[in-house]
Amino acid sequence: MANSREIPPAKGKLGVLTPGLGAVASTFIAGVIAARTGLAEPIGSVSQMAHIRLGKKEEGRNPLIREFVPLATMDDLVFGGWDPITPNVYEAARYAGVLKESDLSSIAGELESIVAMDAVFDQRWVKRLEGHRVKDLTSKWDQALALIDDITKFGVDNECDRMVMVWCGSTEAYQEASEVHETLEAFEEGLKNSDDNISPSQIYAYAAISAGVPFANGAPNLSVDLACMQELAAKRKVVIAGKDFKTGQTLMKTLIAPGLKARMLGLRGWYSTNILGNRDGEVLDDPENFKTKEHSKLGVLDTILQPEVYPDLYGNIDHVVRINYYPPRGDNKEGWDAIDIFGWLGYEMQIKVDFLCRDSILAAPIVLDLALFMDLAQRAGESGVQEWLSFYFKAPQSEIEDVNPEHDLFIQQTKLKNTLREWMGEPAVTHSEAG
Amino acid sequence: MANSREIPPAKGKLGVLTPGLGAVASTFIAGVIAARTGLAEPIGSVSQMAHIRLGKKEEGRNPLIREFVPLATMDDLVFGGWDPITPNVYEAARYAGVLKESDLSSIAGELESIVAMDAVFDQRWVKRLEGHRVKDLTSKWDQALALIDDITKFGVDNECDRMVMVWCGSTEAYQEASEVHETLEAFEEGLKNSDDNISPSQIYAYAAISAGVPFANGAPNLSVDLACMQELAAKRKVVIAGKDFKTGQTLMKTLIAPGLKARMLGLRGWYSTNILGNRDGEVLDDPENFKTKEHSKLGVLDTILQPEVYPDLYGNIDHVVRINYYPPRGDNKEGWDAIDIFGWLGYEMQIKVDFLCRDSILAAPIVLDLALFMDLAQRAGESGVQEWLSFYFKAPQSEIEDVNPEHDLFIQQTKLKNTLREWMGEPAVTHSEAG
Amino acid sequence: MANSREIPPAKGKLGVLTPGLGAVASTFIAGVIAARTGLAEPIGSVSQMAHIRLGKKEEGRNPLIREFVPLATMDDLVFGGWDPITPNVYEAARYAGVLKESDLSSIAGELESIVAMDAVFDQRWVKRLEGHRVKDLTSKWDQALALIDDITKFGVDNECDRMVMVWCGSTEAYQEASEVHETLEAFEEGLKNSDDNISPSQIYAYAAISAGVPFANGAPNLSVDLACMQELAAKRKVVIAGKDFKTGQTLMKTLIAPGLKARMLGLRGWYSTNILGNRDGEVLDDPENFKTKEHSKLGVLDTILQPEVYPDLYGNIDHVVRINYYPPRGDNKEGWDAIDIFGWLGYEMQIKVDFLCRDSILAAPIVLDLALFMDLAQRAGESGVQEWLSFYFKAPQSEIEDVNPEHDLFIQQTKLKNTLREWMGEPAVTHSEAG
Amino acid sequence: MANSREIPPAKGKLGVLTPGLGAVASTFIAGVIAARTGLAEPIGSVSQMAHIRLGKKEEGRNPLIREFVPLATMDDLVFGGWDPITPNVYEAARYAGVLKESDLSSIAGELESIVAMDAVFDQRWVKRLEGHRVKDLTSKWDQALALIDDITKFGVDNECDRMVMVWCGSTEAYQEASEVHETLEAFEEGLKNSDDNISPSQIYAYAAISAGVPFANGAPNLSVDLACMQELAAKRKVVIAGKDFKTGQTLMKTLIAPGLKARMLGLRGWYSTNILGNRDGEVLDDPENFKTKEHSKLGVLDTILQPEVYPDLYGNIDHVVRINYYPPRGDNKEGWDAIDIFGWLGYEMQIKVDFLCRDSILAAPIVLDLALFMDLAQRAGESGVQEWLSFYFKAPQSEIEDVNPEHDLFIQQTKLKNTLREWMGEPAVTHSEAG
Repeated sequence: MANSREIPPAKGKLGVLTPGLGAVASTFIAGVIAARTGLAEPIGSVSQMAHIRLGKKEEGRNPLIREFVPLATMDDLVFGGWDPITPNVYEAARYAGVLKESDLSSIAGELESIVAMDAVFDQRWVKRLEGHRVKDLTSKWDQALALIDDITKFGVDNECDRMVMVWCGSTEAYQEASEVHETLEAFEEGLKNSDDNISPSQIYAYAAISAGVPFANGAPNLSVDLACMQELAAKRKVVIAGKDFKTGQTLMKTLIAPGLKARMLGLRGWYSTNILGNRDGEVLDDPENFKTKEHSKLGVLDTILQPEVYPDLYGNIDHVVRINYYPPRGDNKEGWDAIDIFGWLGYEMQIKVDFLCRDSILAAPIVLDLALFMDLAQRAGESGVQEWLSFYFKAPQSEIEDVNPEHDLFIQQTKLKNTLREWMGEPAVTHSEAG
Repeated sequence: MANSREIPPAKGKLGVLTPGLGAVASTFIAGVIAARTGLAEPIGSVSQMAHIRLGKKEEGRNPLIREFVPLATMDDLVFGGWDPITPNVYEAARYAGVLKESDLSSIAGELESIVAMDAVFDQRWVKRLEGHRVKDLTSKWDQALALIDDITKFGVDNECDRMVMVWCGSTEAYQEASEVHETLEAFEEGLKNSDDNISPSQIYAYAAISAGVPFANGAPNLSVDLACMQELAAKRKVVIAGKDFKTGQTLMKTLIAPGLKARMLGLRGWYSTNILGNRDGEVLDDPENFKTKEHSKLGVLDTILQPEVYPDLYGNIDHVVRINYYPPRGDNKEGWDAIDIFGWLGYEMQIKVDFLCRDSILAAPIVLDLALFMDLAQRAGESGVQEWLSFYFKAPQSEIEDVNPEHDLFIQQTKLKNTLREWMGEPAVTHSEAG
Repeated sequence: MANSREIPPAKGKLGVLTPGLGAVASTFIAGVIAARTGLAEPIGSVSQMAHIRLGKKEEGRNPLIREFVPLATMDDLVFGGWDPITPNVYEAARYAGVLKESDLSSIAGELESIVAMDAVFDQRWVKRLEGHRVKDLTSKWDQALALIDDITKFGVDNECDRMVMVWCGSTEAYQEASEVHETLEAFEEGLKNSDDNISPSQIYAYAAISAGVPFANGAPNLSVDLACMQELAAKRKVVIAGKDFKTGQTLMKTLIAPGLKARMLGLRGWYSTNILGNRDGEVLDDPENFKTKEHSKLGVLDTILQPEVYPDLYGNIDHVVRINYYPPRGDNKEGWDAIDIFGWLGYEMQIKVDFLCRDSILAAPIVLDLALFMDLAQRAGESGVQEWLSFYFKAPQSEIEDVNPEHDLFIQQTKLKNTLREWMGEPAVTHSEAG
Repeated sequence: MANSREIPPAKGKLGVLTPGLGAVASTFIAGVIAARTGLAEPIGSVSQMAHIRLGKKEEGRNPLIREFVPLATMDDLVFGGWDPITPNVYEAARYAGVLKESDLSSIAGELESIVAMDAVFDQRWVKRLEGHRVKDLTSKWDQALALIDDITKFGVDNECDRMVMVWCGSTEAYQEASEVHETLEAFEEGLKNSDDNISPSQIYAYAAISAGVPFANGAPNLSVDLACMQELAAKRKVVIAGKDFKTGQTLMKTLIAPGLKARMLGLRGWYSTNILGNRDGEVLDDPENFKTKEHSKLGVLDTILQPEVYPDLYGNIDHVVRINYYPPRGDNKEGWDAIDIFGWLGYEMQIKVDFLCRDSILAAPIVLDLALFMDLAQRAGESGVQEWLSFYFKAPQSEIEDVNPEHDLFIQQTKLKNTLREWMGEPAVTHSEAG
């Protein structure tokens, strides 16, 4: 049995900084504030609501996770962020239209007081948006320094003991890693030259890690999924995680695909379409930005289904993912999946899933969990990619190069819980006859 | 690390006996025959197609299960069964209409040669069916003895080394365990008195276990889910398992419910309706038989979601299950689920799942797996309820009284695989950081 | 060209009386009040919003129906009703939960002032409800007289020029017409004997027609679909119409079935299931009340598809209708249809329709239209069954015995509009080359 | 009552020529051959299966359309066509995979004997296809003359009394009418210059009409929807019709949209997605070809819903149509629609329609009906656009410029039937009280 680690307790304030104060961030912040005043429950948050079984079933030890590991509490959190459009969190929440006016009214003042800092923004990466509240600096190096200043100032002003940053901004246009991303040295050189291949999210990530602040990436942009960032994280001993919050359709995919495989049912095709009408939908209506999202979404099936191990079952899958901007729904996304499977003797069957979900409602508790778990990992002495947080991501980053990260939600969950058990000196749960 | 058990190898013929030679049994038998002549693949069969990871991911050890544990092969199987209606397996397959004529034609002779033995049948338990090929014996004790004779004769005639029995008959009318089921003594007394509370499936189970033949129950009837049968199984050192094959809608339920819980999303209601037009649908159109099925299907959510641990999320669920006889579909069942969930701050969302499945296509590989795994367990020295086979059942039986059996498909799968690993002296896989 | 009728103008107040002040009636009343104060639009109301084309397309004459025929206006309406449970319309609306609190608040006073009169109620016909605000009279004859008094008093108190009654109460338990319903004489005798076969809705209908008040029936009960009532209507020269508002699933059915037939596509089966959680759902959870509804819903396909004319296409249809009480949805009904069709050479296809509808939102404008059109017909000198209003009913009543009423929504619509055209001396629209 | 026209009877053979001998044409031809040998029924064909009511309902006159009007019979038909890929109809049917091998085998010889003539083909209009069986002529004028020769020769060889042509080829790349299409003179000049704006389907149309052969267009290409073609049709007194067969999703749209409007329910958005895996899907995967289809599909709602008359209900609709190539389904298209409606007081509801259809099965009877009705119209002395056949088209052409053609399936059906009634001297059916 592993020994317990020495994890320092969560003392003082924890600053949660979000680049992007739009639908997701404002729903997250409003929800935490509502929850700590007792108006609502942080439903969907594993860190707040889930129990963890310890030892054998018969022992009946099943504490809340937040009573088992030394997490910061919701009361400890202070919020800040940057946004190129919205002036403050109250305006952001009203524009997003996720939460009902009646749920916002009693906390309007507190939300209004969270004022967005001027953003590092470049329309080249999100054509459909126009930014007005933007830092007036053209050098990317200067932008990075300005962000580090923002972070430092925020920490001092709010008397933070620690901070974490969670990217809640829009999906950036598609790019692949280039030379400038290969080493930290190249990247810093690139910042100084304002290299075209460096996107805003990378500047935020650089600033956060340089300032010793853990960084989690909720969008499919590369951001910290780059060699240079991992080098920086290792050097600065900072934890990072990504990428792309696993919310609606991909969440369902990572439930159903493992189930098909568990039962050795074959798959011929999986067609996924999404309709959504929020700003995210607008941004993704641009083919370049959609391409980034598509890459993030397409990887899921291959890793779960292992076509190389099961060529007869999963070697020839037509996997199509579409996103369509459809304003009538606002933030209320609808994901429709048509799944073509086959069983015994090759006979065909179909599964259709229609998910009437709410993007930000599903994403908000993930922001909370990531903030708290990243902070825990940092205190636990971790650094670099936190693969045990793959549970939260559509396209989880791998610690070890060339090893595919896990996509199966249930294995991800086991990994998350067994990691916590291990840190606290509890044995892993195996569900074998013996234990 | 656990030591490997001494499991004798699978030598000679394994007789697979099915009470009920209808859609499921005929599809199973036709498929195995087609598969061993290379015409088709046994898709959906974990015992035949699944790999099992051994050791750490990096080790790359990932054999087929059937090459890892000493299972009987498909070539070792010989088939027999009882049916009150159908004369032989070819007729059964044609009547069921599951497999295409073109898939049956080349193996018609072999199927025709598997002639149904006269059944123990009583219309009191399945009002919608009329049996003509029925044993002409009124005493239940005599019926049991006749079945034991059938089993013995089948074994001798077919030179079987071992046998297993898998119940593939119709769902019987609802009943709860009564006095006659409490002890083996009471049950044997009841057989002699032809007690009204003893149903045909119980007589089959009694005969099988008495003859040292493992018994698995694919329907929701009590059958071996009775104290008297467990007493008999213990006494005779025979393995048993049940109940109710987990095929279409419940299979999806045990994928999605664990996913909702993993993410701490709340559930307000789950409405499930099924339409099917096969003989199973006809039988379940009778309220008494449906009640048996309903009980089997309703238990699923409570055990997975643990409302006692999560009253705010799962304490108040409206769970409705309906089955409707709808002839246009034949064996091609359609299951439709409307799932009402809630997330962050209580905001509501909906999931709808439409599963155009094929009942017998999904059930057939389960019959194969259960036959082979029950035989393995028997050789491995096990006896009584095989909880590690819960993976295959809608209403798994528990080894220990008052402990709820596991319904979560992913935990069931882990349990199945870790049980095999343990028997073979391999460590459990935990997915923790450490392993 | 037909001559225009002399229809007296709609002067003074029109009283709209509803037995049942539940979800439907309160949504109707609140909506009319909101609409006449300009807060909302009476969407779904043909009488208020639809245009009617006159003459040839090229003429461009396309007035609003309400500017073409002399209807009462929404401003002319005064509301009254009876309810065994709810004290007033505001309470009814709040309990029903159809309209948002914010939509009700500004008209709360007006709604509260519409107080329910004590109802004629008998739990034998709706087992799931308990009535407390009930007339303390056991003789059915006395109950009828008391209702006539209520009507008269309402008319006087509210200075009504005319009145109409629209049944908005629950579905009563199933019954077929019996001897007591054959003649007016037998029925009046039955009232005096408090005959068991006379249900409350029949007493309301008797009272209304006797008082010269048109009666429309929104539920599937017999009510005015009885020989005795037609005799009374003829004698008293009063218009009647029924039965069962065509709202969600049946509405879709009467769109799609005519389309299949237009294209000569065959139909093997149609499976319809509904889930709803309002009081209507609760009442229909009782098999006796469901049976009434089922009868009303099942007739639709036969009349539209004419199996006697098209035996190859429609001679062998499995039509199943189910309603399930499912509280999570409240008034937000969900109807799911699985439709099995076949085309060229018999090849099979499927259509599935999922309708997330709102019962009372769809029914409310029908109450308005029926009130106004019944009043118009009465002024136009009509009496007896108004078959041109079949457009609004699931199980339209026929004027002529043994002739099936029309169910096809598009023929019904044509009939409604051509009837209005005819009354106003305009030629029918035929869509032929010539006109 | 209109007088009957003198329509000469249908004597001798009717040649049916299809440019394109792919899935649709081969399914059509195989079906007609199977039907006339009694193997199958021409389900979906209005000309063969539908009855037509004459006079008042009470008269009970309801003959089959084919017994009411002098149509050619299925026995009279001879088949021919052009295809750049497939050598004969049997190969086409096998490649398409629409009809089962067992349905094709008994008529294989007859299908094989229908050999495709070399096509006029130009990859510029369908990038995804490569043609090999193509006329070796570069001048478009020469191509037109060669087609006229083909037509003449086919007529002589097959002893045809009359011929019709129905375009069953792929959708061509998007184009708008240009100068070359404005007059017949310009078009003929363009043919001689091989003008880039003249597509193959236009050359076929030109050849057909010039040869006095009626032309119907089953694809969304312009083809006969051009001023020059209407001029030619008028000059040559030939009937034409188009465009784009109304089969799966649009068929449903023209059922449901009129129903919403009949009930004055508002519409916010309609999202339609299609997945299909046949050659049509492959062609439409190219954005240029999809654009042609999209235009054809988008027009439907506006004409039906009349946003200019009902701005509050239909003035602001988000209508999105997507087609995705998804090979697992082959010819078995699936159309999924999400429809966002609103009713009373603006409350929102949703309808979802999932149509598991078969493209060619739905299109084949349309080819038959158009062939027979076009031939009838020609004999009845008609010429130019046949608006009464709008019933069959997604984007019906209008006779009169600037008047929108009718899209409502039910009005289209009325128009079709009333046109036939009128030609035969029967009064139009109006469904008014009076008739």
